[in-house]
Amino acid sequence: MFPAPVEQLITELSKLPGIGRRSAQRLAFYLLGRPRDDAAALAAAIIDVKDKISFCRRCFNFTEEELCVFCRDARRDDALICVVEEPSDIIPIEKGGEYRGLYHVLGGSLSPLDGIDPEHLRIKELVERVQTGDVAEVILATNPNTSGESTALYIADLLRDKLRVTRLASGLPVGADLEYADEATVSRALMGRREL
Amino acid sequence: MFPAPVEQLITELSKLPGIGRRSAQRLAFYLLGRPRDDAAALAAAIIDVKDKISFCRRCFNFTEEELCVFCRDARRDDALICVVEEPSDIIPIEKGGEYRGLYHVLGGSLSPLDGIDPEHLRIKELVERVQTGDVAEVILATNPNTSGESTALYIADLLRDKLRVTRLASGLPVGADLEYADEATVSRALMGRREL
Repeated sequence: MFPAPVEQLITELSKLPGIGRRSAQRLAFYLLGRPRDDAAALAAAIIDVKDKISFCRRCFNFTEEELCVFCRDARRDDALICVVEEPSDIIPIEKGGEYRGLYHVLGGSLSPLDGIDPEHLRIKELVERVQTGDVAEVILATNPNTSGESTALYIADLLRDKLRVTRLASGLPVGADLEYADEATVSRALMGRREL
Repeated sequence: MFPAPVEQLITELSKLPGIGRRSAQRLAFYLLGRPRDDAAALAAAIIDVKDKISFCRRCFNFTEEELCVFCRDARRDDALICVVEEPSDIIPIEKGGEYRGLYHVLGGSLSPLDGIDPEHLRIKELVERVQTGDVAEVILATNPNTSGESTALYIADLLRDKLRVTRLASGLPVGADLEYADEATVSRALMGRREL
């Protein structure tokens, strides 16, 4: 229906997650309507990111150098490692502004049904880091869902006798309305109740 | 937070319609995780489309050559012009398989509040086509919404004394449930009722 280059662009855009054929078509038409420089900037950014970005040798966060921005920072506390599923999970923790330790990016969470077993995540590398470094505590900050919880439990079992292993608290989000909270969150909040 | 090339890609992706900062981040991370060749294919498709695609000299549909695939096709009836807002509007009409005339792509619809006046659309070019060619009928297939309707009325006023000007029928979509149809559609269907 469309000229070959348009069809090709729609096909490539449809491969992106969450982009169906119709959205891909809309994006392709948008790019067709933009000045060539705008489209070239997007294409260059895609190539650039593949050419310049790799994984931090120590924590597997994204980096332009051998070590990521956190692992390079001498002011960060290297006795503390916060374990997350993906590099994007680092953002909300950094936004909080309180955490001063390092990170370890697993690259996902355990999900045997999807074929994601411990050897597919950077768990071995975490254990090595803990054994070779001077680490006092590992904070497990995997997502509070089924696969995140089982990943946390799996890692806790591996590390518990080596050092302090903690998990982010589960409970009511700040600003939430008790009336509308789901049962699982409320029962977690009850289990984790604290003396005032 | 992220290395500069990642931030740059997120920024470029956020410029796309319907892609917010969070979606852009997800897309960027997806591309980071793909083999370089996959990312390069997307970048190449973007550049290719800008280099190879232009507007048909006659009807303003997308084309790789001077005239689009419809204007080049000698078997199409050039006495019939179907006026649409965007090149993508041609697809559903071609899918129907009944229309054998040509097209004219306006490049949008009148929307004075958004600064889209008649001179921003290819209306002048349509009038010229009608005056110089052997056109018998213009079918206005702009969208059945406020701006599409006013665009159709505006063009009809310009062409009505030169040739036959028609509008796609409005009414209940095939397969629809009268119970759930909106009032505007039902009253259109009533106004357009036909003898059986």
